[in-house]
Amino acid sequence: MINLTPGPSQLYFTVADHLKKALRENVLSLSHRSKDFEMIYQESTEGLRSLLGIPDTHSIVFTSSATEVWERSIQNLVAEKSFHFVNGAFSKRYHEIAQQLGKQALLREAAEGESFSDFSIPKDTELIAVTHNETSTGVSWPVNAIHSLKDNNPDALVVVDAVSSLPYPQFDYTKVDSVFFSVQKAFGMPAGLGVWIVNEACLAKAETLQAQGYQTGTYHNLSTLHAFAKKHQTPETPNVLGIYLLGKIVGDFLRRGILTLRRETDYKAAILYNTLQDHAQIKPLVQDVHWQSKTVIVANTGSHTAAIRTALQAKGLAPGEGYGKSKENQLRFANFPAHSKEQYELLVDTLAAF
Amino acid sequence: MINLTPGPSQLYFTVADHLKKALRENVLSLSHRSKDFEMIYQESTEGLRSLLGIPDTHSIVFTSSATEVWERSIQNLVAEKSFHFVNGAFSKRYHEIAQQLGKQALLREAAEGESFSDFSIPKDTELIAVTHNETSTGVSWPVNAIHSLKDNNPDALVVVDAVSSLPYPQFDYTKVDSVFFSVQKAFGMPAGLGVWIVNEACLAKAETLQAQGYQTGTYHNLSTLHAFAKKHQTPETPNVLGIYLLGKIVGDFLRRGILTLRRETDYKAAILYNTLQDHAQIKPLVQDVHWQSKTVIVANTGSHTAAIRTALQAKGLAPGEGYGKSKENQLRFANFPAHSKEQYELLVDTLAAF
Repeated sequence: MINLTPGPSQLYFTVADHLKKALRENVLSLSHRSKDFEMIYQESTEGLRSLLGIPDTHSIVFTSSATEVWERSIQNLVAEKSFHFVNGAFSKRYHEIAQQLGKQALLREAAEGESFSDFSIPKDTELIAVTHNETSTGVSWPVNAIHSLKDNNPDALVVVDAVSSLPYPQFDYTKVDSVFFSVQKAFGMPAGLGVWIVNEACLAKAETLQAQGYQTGTYHNLSTLHAFAKKHQTPETPNVLGIYLLGKIVGDFLRRGILTLRRETDYKAAILYNTLQDHAQIKPLVQDVHWQSKTVIVANTGSHTAAIRTALQAKGLAPGEGYGKSKENQLRFANFPAHSKEQYELLVDTLAAF
Repeated sequence: MINLTPGPSQLYFTVADHLKKALRENVLSLSHRSKDFEMIYQESTEGLRSLLGIPDTHSIVFTSSATEVWERSIQNLVAEKSFHFVNGAFSKRYHEIAQQLGKQALLREAAEGESFSDFSIPKDTELIAVTHNETSTGVSWPVNAIHSLKDNNPDALVVVDAVSSLPYPQFDYTKVDSVFFSVQKAFGMPAGLGVWIVNEACLAKAETLQAQGYQTGTYHNLSTLHAFAKKHQTPETPNVLGIYLLGKIVGDFLRRGILTLRRETDYKAAILYNTLQDHAQIKPLVQDVHWQSKTVIVANTGSHTAAIRTALQAKGLAPGEGYGKSKENQLRFANFPAHSKEQYELLVDTLAAF
């Protein structure tokens, strides 16, 4: 059965082999203070740098999840005021975490499946939180709209949750101060690792807040994470296997080529959206084509939801459920590198025949 | 090569098989909101309950590391005052984290390798932090001394870092409010998971602090962790594979029997300490027999350190280095369930022949 839920999703097809190699090479009992670990760390971060085009102005650190980055980013980058674009369950949770941490967290909301039209931000905003790809609804920001936020608000830090979209989006890293994701979505890996990319402005802000006595955390405050990253280490004993597998998967992605991965994502998204658009019973949830996610595609399946799921499962395809209250009338389709063109062709043929 | 470093240490011999089964059963891409995951969570926590004799008064929650528990325990259980017994690098770090979090963190220090003799605690202490087994020096508290802390300070929460000792110590859970460990030590698993056991008094304290507006964290504050644990879930996407493997290893330990595991630990510790005591060139670092760790045994090897390491490696045994500044003149030997009696007999024979 091919797992089309948007995460944890289908494992990338090489994971099993990499795991077996990790066992043979004793990676699973490796000390996180050894040279061998440092090489694994470096393979992983340097691979990511090549794959995503991350410049040297940005540091790459590891957390245990993207959820952790929600907390750590607010603690380390905001003294008082953050601003959140909220259009679904995950962007909402990021906003709530800022509130829990006692910040003045403003928000602009869009209805389910809708795009934003007002991009004005209060002048004294310290951090603008953008959920590039809202996993619950399949609404995705055009990257240029994110870059414009920086152009129009050069003094605010633009922080992008790219959990269920990377490695697809090609960010201009001079226009995004921080990006983060977790590995169990489009990287096709087992869960338990978050990746947090931060530029020098973020590091400087964290230092300032710490010096001013703000509570920025302990072993995982940004300064400590960065200090260890420079040595290719982590402050705590990390998920060594996760960091190892990430390096290997990134290597596989590099060999396939990021352009190929992005083109295949575009192709698969196009055939699915076309099928949904032309379908008599099913429609895409997101109507504005500029904001339709390429990596998490949500269909309004209404009263046909159960029947469509059954038809897909008969072909070996397990669609994702609609999120939360939409469980009964939507289906979600992850479009990740682990999902092949052939599987997507089978998916659209099955949907079209319904 | 048998890995005798005290962690990450030798994998338990069944880990590879469990991993392969996890791959076959699609555990690595399982949703953390599925019934199957809830069953995995439950297998793991109920197994731990049986193995360690944890009563229903105590909840079991998962973090990403024991380092995380250092931070979360102080945030959730201390308004102002903690008290720390410090006798090595790891107990010191716990104390530092309390300071970083702005608490009045008192400490009582013992020199490297020494035991404590003064157990008096200021009356208004909220949390007493005990590192049951100081991994850097091999000093381990007799469990009765920990239980007495509770008898003499019934109003303070007794929190025990048992990172490199569990499942060996048999705590009286009416006398310890919280215990935590990580899985890459004596459980013989890959790193990336912390286990935090807390009683009702801890949960009540966390609720009180939260109600009073203290900063107790967000997705991993104790109330949230506990609320999800009751549903056999975690707030964030966790290290699902780690939770699965823990359940399987605990199952293996239960089949071997906790009494057998403890007796074998005692046997292996006894033959190693006897050998060190009788040796002309090597001595145990810890002299007080009541405070000699059974699970991390540290030897003063002085100028013979390199030669002894070479002799052991020739027999397929990789000893752990001394910690920090003791790298050149000490060796550390983990005595975990993954280390067999036969391996320990080979170890002592090799040392005796040196």
